[in-house]
Amino acid sequence: VRLTTVHTASGTHAARLDSDLLTALDAPDVGSLLINPDWRAIAEATPVTGDFGSLHDALLAPLVPKPPKIVCVGINYADHMAEMNAPTPERPTLFAKFARALVGPYDPIVIPAAAPDQIDWEAELTVVIGSHGRHLDEPGARRVIAGYTVANDISARDWQFATMQWLSGKTFEHTTPLGPVLVTGDEVDDAADLKIACEVDGIIKQRSRTSQLIFTPAQLVAHVSSMLTLEPGDLILTGTPGGVGAGRTPPEWLVPGMSLTTRIEGIGSLHNICIPENVGMSASAASAATTDWEQT
Amino acid sequence: VRLTTVHTASGTHAARLDSDLLTALDAPDVGSLLINPDWRAIAEATPVTGDFGSLHDALLAPLVPKPPKIVCVGINYADHMAEMNAPTPERPTLFAKFARALVGPYDPIVIPAAAPDQIDWEAELTVVIGSHGRHLDEPGARRVIAGYTVANDISARDWQFATMQWLSGKTFEHTTPLGPVLVTGDEVDDAADLKIACEVDGIIKQRSRTSQLIFTPAQLVAHVSSMLTLEPGDLILTGTPGGVGAGRTPPEWLVPGMSLTTRIEGIGSLHNICIPENVGMSASAASAATTDWEQT
Repeated sequence: VRLTTVHTASGTHAARLDSDLLTALDAPDVGSLLINPDWRAIAEATPVTGDFGSLHDALLAPLVPKPPKIVCVGINYADHMAEMNAPTPERPTLFAKFARALVGPYDPIVIPAAAPDQIDWEAELTVVIGSHGRHLDEPGARRVIAGYTVANDISARDWQFATMQWLSGKTFEHTTPLGPVLVTGDEVDDAADLKIACEVDGIIKQRSRTSQLIFTPAQLVAHVSSMLTLEPGDLILTGTPGGVGAGRTPPEWLVPGMSLTTRIEGIGSLHNICIPENVGMSASAASAATTDWEQT
Repeated sequence: VRLTTVHTASGTHAARLDSDLLTALDAPDVGSLLINPDWRAIAEATPVTGDFGSLHDALLAPLVPKPPKIVCVGINYADHMAEMNAPTPERPTLFAKFARALVGPYDPIVIPAAAPDQIDWEAELTVVIGSHGRHLDEPGARRVIAGYTVANDISARDWQFATMQWLSGKTFEHTTPLGPVLVTGDEVDDAADLKIACEVDGIIKQRSRTSQLIFTPAQLVAHVSSMLTLEPGDLILTGTPGGVGAGRTPPEWLVPGMSLTTRIEGIGSLHNICIPENVGMSASAASAATTDWEQT
C-alpha cells in the first residue's frame, strides 16, 4: 500500500495512492494514521474513490509532518565514507533533526540566511516506524517498520563542522524534503536493493543501491530500540551514498535557483527548487525581526 | 510565577505553585499551557485554591512531557571545558535529546541495560521557551523565554564517545530528570548568577554559578533562533559545570541504588534514585521483548 499526506483547504489529510488516484483516509496525516494499530487494514479496506483527485494535481505535505523522533545515520555507505575520509564504523553514528526542518516532497528548499555558503545534498532511504517497539531483535525490528520513503538530508557543511556536533548544520528550518509516499516493505522487497540517486540541475551526482548500506534498516531499528522506545511516525534517515558536494574537487554547493531531484527505485522522487530565505529581506533585517514567519 | 506538571488520576495537569500549595490550571501540562499566548495572565489570575494539595504530597511529571525540541549545549562552563580537555568554543556546540529520555523531578533514573557501565551526571540550568521566535536578537530572545527549570543531562559516556556524535549516549529512555518547576525570570534575576550543584549520595560533585556560563541563555536562544523557529515548550539545556564523573581520577559512575540531587538556587531541586532497567529481567530477555513497557 502507498500512503501520502495532502494539503487540503482544511489542513493536511492522509490519503492512499492507487496509480495516480488519491483516496482520503480518516486521519490528518500519515503520522497520525500510523498511531492506529489497525492502520494497514483501514488503509487497505477503504474503497478507491479518488476523492482527492490525481497525484499530479495535489499539493503534498511532508509525509509525516511532526515525527516524535527523527534519527539520522551518518557514514553508512562505503562509497560516502571514502569520500568523507571516515573509517569503517563498528556501530551506527546517530544524530538528530527537528521536525521544523521538514518540507513537502515538491516544496522549495530554503537556503538559510545564516548559512548560505556550503549547502550540500544527501539522498537518503528513510524508514517510517509503524508501531511501538523496544529492545527489538532484527525480526522484531522488521515488524515495526511501516514502510519506506525518501528524504534529502540537506546539510550546511560549514555549520555542521564548526563544532564537534553535526546538529547545527543538519536542522535548518525548511531544508529537508520528505516523501512523496510511504511504501510498505512488501511492495519494494523490504528496500533491500533499490537504486538511489540524486540529481542537481539534471546532472546525476549520487548513484548507488540500498544494498550498499553498511547497517541495514532492520539493524538500525534494532539498534535505536536498544536506546529508547520507537513510536509510530518516527523516522530513521539511513545515511547517504557517495557523490555529495563536499566530497567533490572542487566542492560543489547548492545555491538559489538550483533544482534537486532525489529518487529511490520503487518508492518515488522528490523534486525541489532551492530558494533564498526571505527574498528581498536582508539577513540583518531578518535578524531584527521577532515574528514567526513561514517560508513555505 | 511558578508552574509545574502534576500526575493526577486522569492524567497529567498543569498547576501553579504558591508556597507549598498547588492550584490547578486549565491545561494537561506546562508545555500545553505555554501554547496559549495568555499563559502568564491566566496563570497569575487564577485564585489560589490549592485544589491539588501540597507539593509535598504530589507526584510530579516531567515539567514539559513532550517538548517540540530539546536542544542541549556542550562545553559551556569554563571549568567543565578544562576537565574534558576541550578548547574554548567560539560558538555553541549543540546536540539533541528526544522526549522519551525525560522523567519527572523525583522519578527514578533508569540505568540502561544496553549501557550500564559509564553513567555520568550533568546538572544543567534549562531554558523553557514560551512563545514563537525566529532570528531573534538578545532582547527578542529574552522575550521568548518563559522561564527556567532544572535538568540533569545523564550521559552514558561509553556510548557518547563510541562514535563522533554524542546523541547515542544522551537520549536513553527515562534518564533525564526535568523540573520540578518553571520559574519566570523576574523571580530569579533572569537566572544570571544562581548557584548550581549536583550531589551523589549526599556528596557534592558539581558546584558552580550560572554566571560561569560562556554562552548565556539569551545568547543561546538567539543563536538557535537563527537556525529554526523556537516554539512554546522547547527546552534548551545550557550545559554543565565541572565535576562530572568522567573528569575525576579515577572516573566515577552512577550505579543502581545511588541517589542524585541536582539543585539550582531560586528554582528548585531534582531528587532521583538510580535503578536498573527491568529489575529481575536479564538484558538478553529484554532484547527478545517487543512490547512497550514503561519504567516509571
